[in-house]
Formats: sequence, structure tokens, C-alpha cells
Amino acid sequence: MYKNQNKFMLEAIRLSKENIDNGGGPFGAVIVKNGKIIATGVNKVTVNNDPTAHAEVNVIREASAVLKTFDLSGCEIYTSCEPCPMCLGAIYWAHLDKIYFGNTKIDAKNIGFNDTFIYDEIMLPIAKRNLPTVQIMSEKAIEAFVKWEKKEDKTAY
Amino acid sequence: MYKNQNKFMLEAIRLSKENIDNGGGPFGAVIVKNGKIIATGVNKVTVNNDPTAHAEVNVIREASAVLKTFDLSGCEIYTSCEPCPMCLGAIYWAHLDKIYFGNTKIDAKNIGFNDTFIYDEIMLPIAKRNLPTVQIMSEKAIEAFVKWEKKEDKTAY
Repeated sequence: MYKNQNKFMLEAIRLSKENIDNGGGPFGAVIVKNGKIIATGVNKVTVNNDPTAHAEVNVIREASAVLKTFDLSGCEIYTSCEPCPMCLGAIYWAHLDKIYFGNTKIDAKNIGFNDTFIYDEIMLPIAKRNLPTVQIMSEKAIEAFVKWEKKEDKTAY
Repeated sequence: MYKNQNKFMLEAIRLSKENIDNGGGPFGAVIVKNGKIIATGVNKVTVNNDPTAHAEVNVIREASAVLKTFDLSGCEIYTSCEPCPMCLGAIYWAHLDKIYFGNTKIDAKNIGFNDTFIYDEIMLPIAKRNLPTVQIMSEKAIEAFVKWEKKEDKTAY
């Protein structure tokens, strides 16, 4: 059981370790389609000065480029650590079929990464979050959605 | 009140409308530092075949490139729509000071975008989510975190 799955996870883990030597965070991920790895990703937040460059975001961007589509249905992701809310959101938008993960968000917290704080924040109503968040100009903003609704030749997702 | 804020939000809204004409989704965002717009972003999911290319992710990547840092403390984001969980996570990781938004996630749902579903999913325990999610090989995965803990010259974030 889990023989192939273990092989793919081992590669995600190998990448997570290798990335430490390359100056990045201890996170790696691979995306698999039809039993083959089609893309790999590692955490490049500090190396690329990009706070969105987590392993899962990077591997999703890579797999989408390889397959030339924003819809990764039929693919699975193997990530060395449970996805943070940003990465979990990305996984839903990409329509991946299944997540395999190694370490948990608690493991990540224990070595200084803030995943659990962000999970806690997202679950709160806007007014109760630490991050000040204000709605303004809703009557103007809605004009774009009305325009979108009226457009006939649009690409939805 | 909100005079400058309205000006910045108007630019985010203008970008959200313009992006429809360019084949993208109806979403725009700007990041402001010291009273000036330092970066802009629009939704390029379908145009770039990149499910992570929401306006907020794009504007964060742009601002980080402009300022050459992964830490956007001291900056504020103006987004034409309430951030989805992916983008909200990105905003936390970027350490932005404040969020101004125009449309709500309910407005987005009403024109066919899936933000509320993803919010609902993220709040559920893993075992109750629609997306199958399995932990495997934790005893191997943790090796990367142990290695990270032992490293002395690392860049944390």
C-alpha cells in the first residue's frame, strides 16, 4: 500500500532538504499526473524576495506552464508539509484531485513558521482579525462585476 | 475622510474593469507605500494559464520585486474585491499593514467565483473536506525540519 505514493513523497522530502542547502526554506513539493512527476517546486521566499513563492505555489505554476492550462484536474500534489492557507487556496483554484503531505502545520509552527496563526486569523470574522481590513467604495467596485456579467465571450474558471 | 484611500481604490477598480477588456477576470489591486502606488496587479489566471495569478498575488510579487524584499511591512493593499483565502494568506505572509477592499466574497460568488466554497473548506478539519488529503511518511518528512533547526546561518521569515 502507498508504494508509488511513498516514492513521490520521498522526492518532495528530498527537495525540501536540498533546498536548505540552497538557502531556501525546508519545503518541497511535486505534482503527479498519470503516475509521473510533471513538475517540482521548492520554497524560494527569501531567495527570490517573493512572499508567495512557497513550494506548492511554485509547483502549481510550473505544472500549469507544462500542461498549458490553469486547470490541473487529474493531478495530485505531494508536499513535504501540510499546505498553509495560501497554498491550500491555490490547490483548490488549481482543481488538484488529492493532497499528500508529510509534516503538519504544528510541526511548521514548532520550527518558527507562522501557518497556524494565519489559519486562526482566516477563520475569524473580518472585524476580529489582527489585520485591519476595511470595505470602501463598494458602489463603484461592483461596476466591474456588472461589466463581467454582461460580457459574452469571457473565459470563466 | 478616506480621500486618499478613495483615490487608490478607484485605481484598483479601474484596473479591474480594464482587465476584462484584456481577457482577464474582473479583479485589480494596488500596493501603496508612503502615500504612493508602488505596484499594480490584475487577475491573469486565464491569460497566463496560472491559477495562482490573482490580482493580489500579482501585486505582492510586483511590490516585492520593486522593493527587493519579501517583507512588505509599511505597505497597504487596495483590492477591488475581498481577498480569497489564497490571497489573504499571501497578504499575511507579506506582512502588509492594512487591507482596503471593494466587492465582497459574496459579490464574487454571485458572478460565479468560488471564494466562499474555499473559505468553507479551509475552516473544516482535514477529514471533513471535499478534497481528499492524506498524511504519509511523517517520520521521513520531519528530517528536513530537524536539519533546518540545526542550520545556523539561515534566513528566517
